[in-house]
Amino acid sequence: MDALVLSARRKGSPVVVGLDPDPRHLPPEMHGLPEAEAAREFCLGVLEATAPEAAAVKLQSAYFERLGAPGAVLYAELLRAAADLDLPTIADVKRGDIGPVAAAYAEAHLSVYGATSVTVNPYMGADAVVPFLDEARRVGAGGGAFVLVATSNPSAAELQNSSEPPLYEAAARLVAGLGRPGETGYPDAGAVVGATRPEVGWGVRELLPDALFLAPGYGAQRGDAANVRALLDARGAGVLVNSSRGILRAFEGTETGYKDAARAATRRMRADLEAAGVRA
Amino acid sequence: MDALVLSARRKGSPVVVGLDPDPRHLPPEMHGLPEAEAAREFCLGVLEATAPEAAAVKLQSAYFERLGAPGAVLYAELLRAAADLDLPTIADVKRGDIGPVAAAYAEAHLSVYGATSVTVNPYMGADAVVPFLDEARRVGAGGGAFVLVATSNPSAAELQNSSEPPLYEAAARLVAGLGRPGETGYPDAGAVVGATRPEVGWGVRELLPDALFLAPGYGAQRGDAANVRALLDARGAGVLVNSSRGILRAFEGTETGYKDAARAATRRMRADLEAAGVRA
Repeated sequence: MDALVLSARRKGSPVVVGLDPDPRHLPPEMHGLPEAEAAREFCLGVLEATAPEAAAVKLQSAYFERLGAPGAVLYAELLRAAADLDLPTIADVKRGDIGPVAAAYAEAHLSVYGATSVTVNPYMGADAVVPFLDEARRVGAGGGAFVLVATSNPSAAELQNSSEPPLYEAAARLVAGLGRPGETGYPDAGAVVGATRPEVGWGVRELLPDALFLAPGYGAQRGDAANVRALLDARGAGVLVNSSRGILRAFEGTETGYKDAARAATRRMRADLEAAGVRA
Repeated sequence: MDALVLSARRKGSPVVVGLDPDPRHLPPEMHGLPEAEAAREFCLGVLEATAPEAAAVKLQSAYFERLGAPGAVLYAELLRAAADLDLPTIADVKRGDIGPVAAAYAEAHLSVYGATSVTVNPYMGADAVVPFLDEARRVGAGGGAFVLVATSNPSAAELQNSSEPPLYEAAARLVAGLGRPGETGYPDAGAVVGATRPEVGWGVRELLPDALFLAPGYGAQRGDAANVRALLDARGAGVLVNSSRGILRAFEGTETGYKDAARAATRRMRADLEAAGVRA
């Protein structure tokens, strides 16, 4: 995860900007454009506006898949545009499948499309995770895989906390056993740990004291900077904090253009995290 | 899942043909073609050759994603070609994400691309599954969602059997609570249950006596017809059995053309299942 950590330090920002172009939440100037074109304008605009404030960009695959083949073209273009802005990328694909299929997914997102890192689902065990780490090591771009451990959604606990020991502990142990540390000391296997359940996050940090966390749920999902603190490592760092809706929809209900609103929201989030003692 | 069940009964076959076009296992006549073109020829050939013997076709998303945007075009074309052959389709995407994202995935695969059914990962709980059922009901094509419960891969037990009660039980209970029965009596929430661990399969069937199962692992992953029997419902039916590699690579090491080899392998599998008492 060196590419992500070094970018966060260089920018002095742990903020990850999530690009989830939801067609129901586009700025008025894009109404009437063909969907893929509207998504393209919007994402490129947000990317450019927020790049100076962000450590990385996360693309939510679903919103590109629903655009069909033009969505695949756009997904590739945005990954290239982020790279041109010197921003590492996270392909938020949450794939999880048997070994050979995981290898095909890893090749797709880390090589063909060229994202720096990916998100991965561990339901199937190590088989489903290792091919992503292998591919990231082969590519050598300082990326890795964030494995879902404790997610931020309302029904997360249904499976993740339904047994003894809880599933999130088994997932955390899986992550601990698979990563290899890079030059920054962070292993290339990271964890997705929501900022919405600090008591769970604290437990996951105990099991993964050295790992880089990707924390979704800030803003729209009611995670806040105080909750992110529960996820920090011993150095007061080790967490990249994603916001998607809080940045993309910042223009709604205001007179501000979407780019200015997105930039201002990203700045506020960065300041808020800094004030809470979250280091990049 | 009515469309799948009715097709299996009409054909007298519980066989699902898995289209996983691995570039390292293409017939010699396709060597030298551009990758997407080779995958297209191969998949269309296998589809046409095996359609009379199959209940449905399953497309493994990863092998299309790794082809980039041309893979998205091909994925759409193959789903249409299967529909033209009167074959219901399963988009093997194993997506699993928070509600609004799951809704975007459901729209992508069940509406934009037009698959009949999908596979879904339950790690995040009901939030991640319900949008697929909602979309399948909205489309009204007799499809649904197969939720990963007990998978067929070597490391499946690492998370699925690591706690008390085991994760696969929690996943099965989730499925039981979400499905609505169609005209055939099978609920629209089905389960992915591998044919490789019959003792687990038996336990899942006890929890889901009425559900339609999709059983991967037949053939290449060492599942066999005897193991499929452990998954049957009280009527001796309720299982669709997938084979990908066993059909796609049947030509390897023979003088037979890939189409004839795929058709013969599908026929043998169908006869093998019939002999073991697996009803369509």
